[in-house]
Amino acid sequence: MAEKKLVEEITSMEEDFAKWYTDIVKKAELIEYTSVKGCMVIRPYGFAIWENIQKILDKMFKDTGHENVCMPMFIPESLLQKEKDHVEGFAPEVAWVTMGGNEILEDRLCVRPTSETLFCEHYANIVHSYRDLPKLYNQWVSVVRWEKTTRPFLRSREFLWQEGHTIHATAEEAVEETKRMLDLYADFCTESLAMPVIKGRKTENDKFAGAEATYAIEALMHDGKALQAGTSHYFGDGFAKAFDIMYTNKENKKVYPHQTSWGVTTRLIGAIIMTHGDDNGLVLPPAVAPIQAVIIPIAQHKQGVLEKCREIKAALENNFRIKLDDSDNSAGWKFSEYEMKGVPIRIEIGPKDIEAGQCVIVTRHNRQKETVPLVNITEMVSKKLQEVHCGLYQNALKNRENRIYFCTNTDEIIETLSKNGDGFVKAMWCGEEECEDGVKEKTGVGSRCILEEEKAAGKCVCCGKPAKHLVVWAKAY
Amino acid sequence: MAEKKLVEEITSMEEDFAKWYTDIVKKAELIEYTSVKGCMVIRPYGFAIWENIQKILDKMFKDTGHENVCMPMFIPESLLQKEKDHVEGFAPEVAWVTMGGNEILEDRLCVRPTSETLFCEHYANIVHSYRDLPKLYNQWVSVVRWEKTTRPFLRSREFLWQEGHTIHATAEEAVEETKRMLDLYADFCTESLAMPVIKGRKTENDKFAGAEATYAIEALMHDGKALQAGTSHYFGDGFAKAFDIMYTNKENKKVYPHQTSWGVTTRLIGAIIMTHGDDNGLVLPPAVAPIQAVIIPIAQHKQGVLEKCREIKAALENNFRIKLDDSDNSAGWKFSEYEMKGVPIRIEIGPKDIEAGQCVIVTRHNRQKETVPLVNITEMVSKKLQEVHCGLYQNALKNRENRIYFCTNTDEIIETLSKNGDGFVKAMWCGEEECEDGVKEKTGVGSRCILEEEKAAGKCVCCGKPAKHLVVWAKAY
Repeated sequence: MAEKKLVEEITSMEEDFAKWYTDIVKKAELIEYTSVKGCMVIRPYGFAIWENIQKILDKMFKDTGHENVCMPMFIPESLLQKEKDHVEGFAPEVAWVTMGGNEILEDRLCVRPTSETLFCEHYANIVHSYRDLPKLYNQWVSVVRWEKTTRPFLRSREFLWQEGHTIHATAEEAVEETKRMLDLYADFCTESLAMPVIKGRKTENDKFAGAEATYAIEALMHDGKALQAGTSHYFGDGFAKAFDIMYTNKENKKVYPHQTSWGVTTRLIGAIIMTHGDDNGLVLPPAVAPIQAVIIPIAQHKQGVLEKCREIKAALENNFRIKLDDSDNSAGWKFSEYEMKGVPIRIEIGPKDIEAGQCVIVTRHNRQKETVPLVNITEMVSKKLQEVHCGLYQNALKNRENRIYFCTNTDEIIETLSKNGDGFVKAMWCGEEECEDGVKEKTGVGSRCILEEEKAAGKCVCCGKPAKHLVVWAKAY
Repeated sequence: MAEKKLVEEITSMEEDFAKWYTDIVKKAELIEYTSVKGCMVIRPYGFAIWENIQKILDKMFKDTGHENVCMPMFIPESLLQKEKDHVEGFAPEVAWVTMGGNEILEDRLCVRPTSETLFCEHYANIVHSYRDLPKLYNQWVSVVRWEKTTRPFLRSREFLWQEGHTIHATAEEAVEETKRMLDLYADFCTESLAMPVIKGRKTENDKFAGAEATYAIEALMHDGKALQAGTSHYFGDGFAKAFDIMYTNKENKKVYPHQTSWGVTTRLIGAIIMTHGDDNGLVLPPAVAPIQAVIIPIAQHKQGVLEKCREIKAALENNFRIKLDDSDNSAGWKFSEYEMKGVPIRIEIGPKDIEAGQCVIVTRHNRQKETVPLVNITEMVSKKLQEVHCGLYQNALKNRENRIYFCTNTDEIIETLSKNGDGFVKAMWCGEEECEDGVKEKTGVGSRCILEEEKAAGKCVCCGKPAKHLVVWAKAY
């Protein structure tokens, strides 16, 4: 049976989580490998998810006053070197263009790993007065980082992202922007990806090269590992000083402006897979699903079935992304196919349904069936998609809450994780790098972020000295 | 006076066309130069034009069944070399990545100048049966070609484009696709850019590296030079053979499929500038203008003026891209500013207008003023934008028709162009490369395209032997 075959081909999560993941990205036709090591083809179904993510985020960015621009993809080595920490952080993992045509380049070019240096050069050209501030920019591009081990969406040598870059008159404004964008990302994850995230600040050790502070949202995957789903950086005036960006303020004095940058990447697709997917394949949140509902005719050769299906499709497609599969594959094969592809709901319509003026709606994530009347089908589909979104979010939240452990010493961390499996460990930290490394060495979990809004109390989980921060620790992608 | 200053800063078209062009791209804030030679920053106002172009074209592509994908930006040298003509055409002008991090690459990577080879590798992986065909793909990316002399939008080392790539069961289908997309481009230029184009086939000499036939749309710029605004290539099965792409047809035989590719680039923005611009700056067609109408308050400190302007803005902004400039610059300064930026219409509202329940609408391209009632302002703006579009198209068409010359020998070409200035020369051609080169050498105009739909008759403009084709000749960007 064709439908069996499809399902059998996925490794179960339990058996081999990594294999389960790569099975899904391939079988759901999200990506295909290429002969370009560490790079992939994002196929139409995968790219359509990214397009939906882009559309929603781009609107959120524009609604908060940001404008899109496009910087060159190359950065001259001399420009990259202007900010010391930044170049140290990125130089070891960039791709170098050393020849153009047959000419050897004097100043070799790196393919952008991130574009702070280009934005800074641009700011220096266009920011002169307080009237020129703020500039709130974003770009949707791909960047390159020469990773040794790669996995589709999670870590690849080239990936797609958006990078926001802003420049402000005051530190306060820039800090506010940094946090605003972190909140925006968290809202997006909640509202569009049905994925709960924890917001926090990265430790000194873990912050972006050149930043004064890095904030991140962290999500918990099915296997108990953390995935950093977005970051927002506050730069202070460090880049401005390195790139000699100054403006004349209202008091007619020349001063340095303050900057931020923030980004999310195609990693989010990996996060969706590992937050919602199951052993039948992908499970997509309705807001970003390329197909929100698939109509599957039952006994489609019978008179009137396809006609009715087309009619329902026409009624729905103004409001939703709808597909009618009228191919000659069996209905069972189609069920498996769209389960694999994570389509949030399927609508089955057969001769008996038509007679009774109804159809069967099956929600992908919990396989619940409901027979509903064909009148008001639009409202019904809308309601079901809402249900799916809430269901996905509640499941993900429950999974996460069940895997948050509060520990007071490293032995407890080891014991808890070995008993319950991986997850988020909440534990106090004194703020010393030695202890951060110590926790990692002893227990295998690293610091994910400092929970700034929660009060530190008690003792460091590692050294026992008074704690400065409450930190979330986890193994991470 | 501020408004004078702005206008004075642009070189007139008559005085120095090239300088006029670069003045506009800078003063209208479309681009900014960078330290990356031959690459530029596309600033928010310039990028918003591209976003509008993208939005319209992307919908046209999807409406004709195409899906977006994303290929890697790198091509291994070994992959690029698989199709002989293709590599010969592109290798001399690519940027080479030879190092990743500190590691020297064995198979160096070129930054994609175009992605046929990557699509072919992908097709070979996913196309096996006639059921897998056709695949109708597109991607929106940037590409790199190591040009020696560069000019913003017209020729730069990195540029943005879309590249469509399709693969079909039969040659007929692929030929049909090639022409469908050429027609689509021509329709887009007419309907959205108000830019008339000539459709034709490139000569053997001028076709895309690896193509069986290249079709192009050619537009005539203000200075009488041609600009290739889009191309569509038919590949036959040449790439399929080079990349070993085969499928099993309905008769269960393994056969080669047939391919196409087609693209337009950020060059289109250059074409808009040189088709519609004037000595006061940019003139934008309404369909792609980031701001379709700007509201300028007159005597804005007077009571009720700004309130009324905001009310009108609110009434219009659901249907149009509207800006209200309530900054403290003078009204005259604002007039110049938005003329420079090519905003199709401006709406002036002052105390007397408000009293009379009216406003003044000025259309950018012809500076015509009309006083119109504020009731029905939405319909009025809609009508005006239509008028602007038609006016721009008619002007461009008239300019072009006045500069099309039919010539029968090379002396006539020289004489005509020297008397009337540059333009499109229509002249017969025998089909020999020698004569194509001969015309160029003697007269300075090169073949732009063969008018396939017009009948050849009479003698070759160069050698006098019987003509095979009617060709459009011109100097070109």
